[in-house]
Amino acid sequence: MKTVILGGGTWGVAMAIHLNRIGHEVVIWSALQSELDTLAESHAHPNLKGAVIPREIGFAADIRCCSEADMVVFAVPSVFVRTTAERAAPYLHCGQLLVDLAKGIEPDTYMTMSQIIEEQVNLGRDDRDRMHCVALSGPTHAEEVALNLPTAIVSASPDVQARNAVMQAFSPPTLRVYTANDVLGVELCGALKNIMALAAGICCGIGYGDNAKAALITRGMAEMARLGRAMGCDERTFWGLTGVGDLIVTATSLHSRNNRAGMLIGQGMSAAEAVKSVGMVVEGLHALPAAVGLANRYGVDMPIVMGVREIVEDGADPKDIVIRLMTRESKNEALDSQSK
Amino acid sequence: MKTVILGGGTWGVAMAIHLNRIGHEVVIWSALQSELDTLAESHAHPNLKGAVIPREIGFAADIRCCSEADMVVFAVPSVFVRTTAERAAPYLHCGQLLVDLAKGIEPDTYMTMSQIIEEQVNLGRDDRDRMHCVALSGPTHAEEVALNLPTAIVSASPDVQARNAVMQAFSPPTLRVYTANDVLGVELCGALKNIMALAAGICCGIGYGDNAKAALITRGMAEMARLGRAMGCDERTFWGLTGVGDLIVTATSLHSRNNRAGMLIGQGMSAAEAVKSVGMVVEGLHALPAAVGLANRYGVDMPIVMGVREIVEDGADPKDIVIRLMTRESKNEALDSQSK
Repeated sequence: MKTVILGGGTWGVAMAIHLNRIGHEVVIWSALQSELDTLAESHAHPNLKGAVIPREIGFAADIRCCSEADMVVFAVPSVFVRTTAERAAPYLHCGQLLVDLAKGIEPDTYMTMSQIIEEQVNLGRDDRDRMHCVALSGPTHAEEVALNLPTAIVSASPDVQARNAVMQAFSPPTLRVYTANDVLGVELCGALKNIMALAAGICCGIGYGDNAKAALITRGMAEMARLGRAMGCDERTFWGLTGVGDLIVTATSLHSRNNRAGMLIGQGMSAAEAVKSVGMVVEGLHALPAAVGLANRYGVDMPIVMGVREIVEDGADPKDIVIRLMTRESKNEALDSQSK
Repeated sequence: MKTVILGGGTWGVAMAIHLNRIGHEVVIWSALQSELDTLAESHAHPNLKGAVIPREIGFAADIRCCSEADMVVFAVPSVFVRTTAERAAPYLHCGQLLVDLAKGIEPDTYMTMSQIIEEQVNLGRDDRDRMHCVALSGPTHAEEVALNLPTAIVSASPDVQARNAVMQAFSPPTLRVYTANDVLGVELCGALKNIMALAAGICCGIGYGDNAKAALITRGMAEMARLGRAMGCDERTFWGLTGVGDLIVTATSLHSRNNRAGMLIGQGMSAAEAVKSVGMVVEGLHALPAAVGLANRYGVDMPIVMGVREIVEDGADPKDIVIRLMTRESKNEALDSQSK
């Protein structure tokens, strides 16, 4: 299978290594020539310690390479998904598998990544030529996928053929792929969990322990599920690999930049300083405006999201916000999760 | 409020320190005179680093101290709950609050801890004198509660007055108490999560990473929820603080002896050697027979529980079991969680 990976970051490169390992013919495309040069010369990615990029993996700076592919995988940061889809669109055609690995919600449109990709690639197409994009999501540190450590992931699309084809394409042997049809739920989880990981990091940065972090993750999941329910998603998605599974891996590991950025903010840095110190894209900060907007649009109570917004945008004291979250009026947990 | 804590282990002592801090008159009872002597002399518990036992906390070797209490809290290991309830029963009376902190399921009877306590204390009582026991559970490392770090917990009982009274009694200021009425669900979670923490530890001991652990925790929760649903519990309990919250804190922290024991087993020790090395009660091993029995009785598919049983009882190779779990036929995640 010929596969083009769009994006030469950690996730794109890790997936390229995995797909090469299971027999794909892989080309990595990047908009940044310098990124391609470094990868091609060093056969390594600085953030994928111990992983070697095999010589069979090709590199391309010309996005026309997509036209030859059986599968095109979007692995750019969420803020570049629209422009990348726009650039790739002329070279995509029916019969190709489209897969998205980016997680986020566009701030202005509240669109998820697969929605953006489908909108861009289907502009001017006939309905019968419409292409679908499968969202691939789950608890997946790129570092571990690159090293061939066991990982489970979900292939999500309403199109049963597409999601099964992607499952087959990525599956053996250490990557266990489940399928799901609730693509909106899967993508909401992927975007919102980064905000919860920021919150968990903030909590840890203040000096609080595992109890507070576990409470925050659990209540954060309840918040995400409330929004999902209001938006018509399948609530079970939120309790699956792409929801609680991905949140656990993001919020309890120092691999995660959202978690790391949160810790720095909890220790007193501003959001801008924390992003600079982490030195990579912090997706939770990009997803925040859309999460706030969606909570307001659907009238859903999201105290953790709102607390993170106050810290990040208004410069509120993290400790005050956490204390407020902990001292809200006590209530019945199940009734609370039932209400909007 | 006069409170007797039955049990001088880490959880009992941590809760004694918390209740003393918020104004209770606290006495710790233990069946072990040597334990009481050590606590009284050192004003510390060896496993609660940095926490001081205040001088106002009393110690008692005579269980008749229960008769004077407004609240009696069971904090012994699960295997001693029945005998402790039997000993305390003659000195308990209507109007007292009974609270259970122990987590487990009795191997022969499949009874939960609050069920055992209620059975023992109500033997020979009139129906109108019946006492209820509230289960208190959640993501709570004793070490952090002792140090006054923020923690959320659930007070579970079908008796609304009792669960609200316990919420009030434990609440301010760093312990945030939610209420719940699904006491069976809460107690199943408390017992089963220890088995999943063992599994997560085993996975880590083999050398697998955060991705595999997060997948295991998530699939483990799905398994617990399947059993709970078959037993008539409220599924939302499994996605709350006492379910996924408690599992996260147990399975991702080295504070947890279940996790630690699992790691040693994953590295090649037998279960007996691991227990000896951890040096404390490993509740997951005690809960295992009942979990296997319940899965069979209710016809529920619990591959992780069964895998842990094979490792612990049959000496199966942990790596073979994890590979089997990872390579089961791929499927639709939501449909899978729907089926029994």
